[in-house]
Amino acid sequence: MYAAAERAQRAARPLGTAARHLKDAALHAMADALEGHRDQILHANAADLSKQEAAGTSPAMVDRLRLTAERVSAMAAGLRALATLPDPVGEVVRGGTLATGLELRQVRVPFGVVAIIYEGRPNVTADAAGICLKSGNAVLLRGSSSALESNVAIVAALREGVASTGLPADAIQLLTGDREDIGYLLQARGLVDVVIPRGGAALIQRVVTESTVPVIETGVGNCHVYVDADADLDMAERIIVNAKTDRPSVCNAAESLVLHADIAAEFVPRIVKVLAAEGVTVHGDEAVRRLSPDVIPATDDDFAAEYLSLDLSAAVVGSLDDAVTHIRRYGTGHTEAIVTRSQEAARRFTADVDAAVVVVNASTRFTDGEEFGFGAEIGISTQKMHARGPMGLPEMTSTKYVVTGGGHIRS
Amino acid sequence: MYAAAERAQRAARPLGTAARHLKDAALHAMADALEGHRDQILHANAADLSKQEAAGTSPAMVDRLRLTAERVSAMAAGLRALATLPDPVGEVVRGGTLATGLELRQVRVPFGVVAIIYEGRPNVTADAAGICLKSGNAVLLRGSSSALESNVAIVAALREGVASTGLPADAIQLLTGDREDIGYLLQARGLVDVVIPRGGAALIQRVVTESTVPVIETGVGNCHVYVDADADLDMAERIIVNAKTDRPSVCNAAESLVLHADIAAEFVPRIVKVLAAEGVTVHGDEAVRRLSPDVIPATDDDFAAEYLSLDLSAAVVGSLDDAVTHIRRYGTGHTEAIVTRSQEAARRFTADVDAAVVVVNASTRFTDGEEFGFGAEIGISTQKMHARGPMGLPEMTSTKYVVTGGGHIRS
Repeated sequence: MYAAAERAQRAARPLGTAARHLKDAALHAMADALEGHRDQILHANAADLSKQEAAGTSPAMVDRLRLTAERVSAMAAGLRALATLPDPVGEVVRGGTLATGLELRQVRVPFGVVAIIYEGRPNVTADAAGICLKSGNAVLLRGSSSALESNVAIVAALREGVASTGLPADAIQLLTGDREDIGYLLQARGLVDVVIPRGGAALIQRVVTESTVPVIETGVGNCHVYVDADADLDMAERIIVNAKTDRPSVCNAAESLVLHADIAAEFVPRIVKVLAAEGVTVHGDEAVRRLSPDVIPATDDDFAAEYLSLDLSAAVVGSLDDAVTHIRRYGTGHTEAIVTRSQEAARRFTADVDAAVVVVNASTRFTDGEEFGFGAEIGISTQKMHARGPMGLPEMTSTKYVVTGGGHIRS
Repeated sequence: MYAAAERAQRAARPLGTAARHLKDAALHAMADALEGHRDQILHANAADLSKQEAAGTSPAMVDRLRLTAERVSAMAAGLRALATLPDPVGEVVRGGTLATGLELRQVRVPFGVVAIIYEGRPNVTADAAGICLKSGNAVLLRGSSSALESNVAIVAALREGVASTGLPADAIQLLTGDREDIGYLLQARGLVDVVIPRGGAALIQRVVTESTVPVIETGVGNCHVYVDADADLDMAERIIVNAKTDRPSVCNAAESLVLHADIAAEFVPRIVKVLAAEGVTVHGDEAVRRLSPDVIPATDDDFAAEYLSLDLSAAVVGSLDDAVTHIRRYGTGHTEAIVTRSQEAARRFTADVDAAVVVVNASTRFTDGEEFGFGAEIGISTQKMHARGPMGLPEMTSTKYVVTGGGHIRS
């Protein structure tokens, strides 16, 4: 691991100051190499799939692993799309002439070496490699062991593409060691500049606890939809169904419903029925169950759960303040939505709720780098330091101050 | 500690959304209270001083601890100056209307609860409390045990000032427990949002290693001045003397000299003589000592040292690239300066040196929040995540995305 990190650090130096046209050429070459090696990649993927099937992995999980010719082309298209985005490196964030006459510029620079530890789908490998390359960072990729053969084949193609343009192949490396290897990675302060875990709560907890390298936490989303006393109930229904059922397995799907007591009598039976028709199981508190007796009782664990399935917790509250308190207690700081016609309720909710994204009268599903117009995202940060919410290319950089004088000294 | 952190978290809620005029009124009330309680503060400080004198602490250290009527007034003036600065909270960092018609705004919000662990001078207590209050953060202050009585008196006055304006006094708390208390603080993830250590390398190392709370590293500065082949040697002399001797005990003072071989024969004897006249001891490599035989030999530790005294390491290099390599090896990523007449050398040095601040033809001493025009600073970050360089009020905030729709759902 240390040898790989040292290679990454060496590769980061020329990459960090590479002109945009070189990086964009590398992205195109990476895309071409993925398509050129499609057969090898699909062959490697087939090996991963049969190993998982033999191990009795659930069909849904196996399907997440599966690559097809179309999915390989989609990875290549993603890399080519990155080439069209502005280069974040070199952007002058602020600048001016100081009182002393010194010129001050704050300029975006890459972090240096970024480690990404992720679970599941092998398309993340190409996405993450592309975003790191475009932002001038060398990357150490640590994927799931279930996707090992696929990731090896993808990274081999990406490295070939990078090397063909004269940039260092070691800008992209796959770590294939055992679980202990992650431990070394998390202690590689000074060699690795940032670690980004992408995956479930257990992975993120391990990284946050063990790492001395700075961490950007991503992704766990127990997202709430709060239906205010003043809500348009047709809109609330539309938003809840979309937020829960559009794609239940992703972090911006709704997991919890919070309902104002004033609309509960009318709305609870209605939304429970609509959700049941969509295949959603509601886990409700006592107030919900008094209004819809068939609802399963919710435990404290239900309110805290990121189900990632067609389940939804539901609680009735007496006020907007109680809704905020419920969300503060159980939320993960990802995305929280209010449905209301009241300007004052919207203002208070957006001010008081402490989350990366607060949504008024729209689905939680919009929390996404593409939807936000960033063009690409490496993940959704749920921490407050450095980046919060969808992380695009600028969030993959640091800055540096450049001070220019004419022999200035301080007195 | 946990009880204090919970009180801070409760205080952070009203403080985080408090209007600017309330926070500015609190800053003025804090300043008034410091001056109103000047006698108690000086009395408490006298107790700290006599305890340190009895313990045989060095006169220089005791002097750092010492408060006077003027120093108390300077703390008060610092708080009043903070009231004149713009409120970072609520600033819209970016925003616009998305393709879907959704309105997106990225808005600055406070972190919540900030812990500051610091050594030495008690005036940091008032500065840090003021910056946190203005940026909407509740603060847990953990000062040096040598300044305990002074800090208790200062914090009592500040809390009285805050409370008099209706904001919660628990926005400012002093932690007075033993060393173990710091351990609990560093594990208080979820209660404490950010820890900022301000002090020596040992303190920072402990915080970085033990903390599961996100850390902003500050302050260790092994700052270099590189004199290029193309340097104006008069300018180089002026800058080196200023960078080393203006205030040797601070992190932006120069600690290391790197000299291009082409100017070494002329410049080494000259700068060694000038520095000797200023009381500076030079620790040189073999090339330096061949040119100035009286110079003390430098070890590897010298090149890595943050002396904070009238000592300076010096090395001769064969090229600008070698200078960059030397700085990459020994630097702490704080401030690195080049003296050169060459535009190309300046361009390469600023691009290749990896530091918070890179200076061309000026003293390293300019790395400072006041000098940069930020009005105040909580410290100088030497890490790449979140903030790098002098940290003003905006660096003490996170952001939140607010998304406003008209019933938008994602398809």
